[in-house]
Amino acid sequence: MTDPAGDLQGWRIDLAWRGEGYVGWQRQPNGPSIQGAVEDALRQALGGEVVAVSSTGRTDAGVHAMHQVAGFSARSPRRPDRLRDALNALLPDDIACLDARLAPLDFDPRRWTLQKTYRYRILARTPRCPFRAGQTWHHRRPLDVPAMAAAAPALVGTHDFSSFRAAGCGARSPVRRVLGVDVRLCEDEVLIDVSGHGFLRHQVRIFAGTLVEIGAGRLSADALPAVLAARDRSQAGPTAPAQGLWLMRVVMGDGPREGSLI
Amino acid sequence: MTDPAGDLQGWRIDLAWRGEGYVGWQRQPNGPSIQGAVEDALRQALGGEVVAVSSTGRTDAGVHAMHQVAGFSARSPRRPDRLRDALNALLPDDIACLDARLAPLDFDPRRWTLQKTYRYRILARTPRCPFRAGQTWHHRRPLDVPAMAAAAPALVGTHDFSSFRAAGCGARSPVRRVLGVDVRLCEDEVLIDVSGHGFLRHQVRIFAGTLVEIGAGRLSADALPAVLAARDRSQAGPTAPAQGLWLMRVVMGDGPREGSLI
Repeated sequence: MTDPAGDLQGWRIDLAWRGEGYVGWQRQPNGPSIQGAVEDALRQALGGEVVAVSSTGRTDAGVHAMHQVAGFSARSPRRPDRLRDALNALLPDDIACLDARLAPLDFDPRRWTLQKTYRYRILARTPRCPFRAGQTWHHRRPLDVPAMAAAAPALVGTHDFSSFRAAGCGARSPVRRVLGVDVRLCEDEVLIDVSGHGFLRHQVRIFAGTLVEIGAGRLSADALPAVLAARDRSQAGPTAPAQGLWLMRVVMGDGPREGSLI
Repeated sequence: MTDPAGDLQGWRIDLAWRGEGYVGWQRQPNGPSIQGAVEDALRQALGGEVVAVSSTGRTDAGVHAMHQVAGFSARSPRRPDRLRDALNALLPDDIACLDARLAPLDFDPRRWTLQKTYRYRILARTPRCPFRAGQTWHHRRPLDVPAMAAAAPALVGTHDFSSFRAAGCGARSPVRRVLGVDVRLCEDEVLIDVSGHGFLRHQVRIFAGTLVEIGAGRLSADALPAVLAARDRSQAGPTAPAQGLWLMRVVMGDGPREGSLI
């Protein structure tokens, strides 16, 4: 460590990454993780000081982030822009530090999150695209996007989302508050934007997989209230592939969010 | 060959590719080419028939194509949508066939081109982006985009572009007709769109490198007429890196273009 006796300082770092080469956010024994890569780069950038980085939540293997917020505490003093540049020099090419700034010592990305927006991207055309392999779900057959858009609002609000929760989800409660689900066609992609405070395991991917069932005509556009009410994973559609999921934007408050963490 | 005795049929195929892994369009001994990959896939798709594929022009190593048009003649009959799907199954992931259709036997992509539009993409921000490495020129310092936009129209029109032509350019004449050069800021990218019938070697990349000199304040915004008039490569800016160059769109006529091929 360059300054082992310095005072502990809180930090916020904003990150982006391509998910193809990673087992997800969390450090795991079976392959490289975003958390591991960021902690390794920080240790080098901080002259050997070992820090523990937390983010607003885990992301699955293969999921991309245009914007994720993470935090840590360190004793080594650094200028924020220099730390950002050092991280970008040390991190692999598929992870970038967008910003680094000082934060209060009690900064907790997960608890301070006001809103997270995910986008699920479906490439809806017959030929594949060399620029979007691994970054979209390629669905070759036509989708009824108006039917998907009409169905989506049924997923908004505070609900028991047990029907849209992966086996093995560790959350204590299946209740979450979803702030918005918008489906639209943008050129050759169907975009599903989902915002909320936080999500159950695979929740957004099961939303996408279920909406695609509606778009393909295998599920009625007015079926979602009954699927929700069933609180039964088998009533919803399949889990859409991780590669189409993008964490787009995290909005942070200036302290822990009021109320429960649903 | 499945049908060696069939009549010769002209074909048009529309392609897209990521340029990172290729030596450029043209077959070369020093590495994989787009032309080689497409000819190899066509030979398999046509049951062993060997065909020669030509495009509207060469592209450099590392240059990307959102849309390029190529053509060939073959004796093996195929349904166009089946040929497109077969090519997409046979081609590497970073090359796609967007469309395949029958064409007249005298179809010549280069001579039938009405207009080609290239885009040069500059990522103009300090932190890098994990999704655009290899697909943009990362220019960390600020650029005066209004000055670049004000200077660009001087490059439009029919001119002797010797100042914007790479050493080794094989074109007989340095005169070309440029139909448009537009510079604009789009979020964190400076986009330079250049359209014309065809271009000299490195012409668009030297346009981009010279406009960046203006944006960085190293060359005056009103210098371009004198740079053009000098007909001297050393008067223009450096050649911008290939990775930022994208062939965006090719417009084909229904026969050879009238007039000279400038």
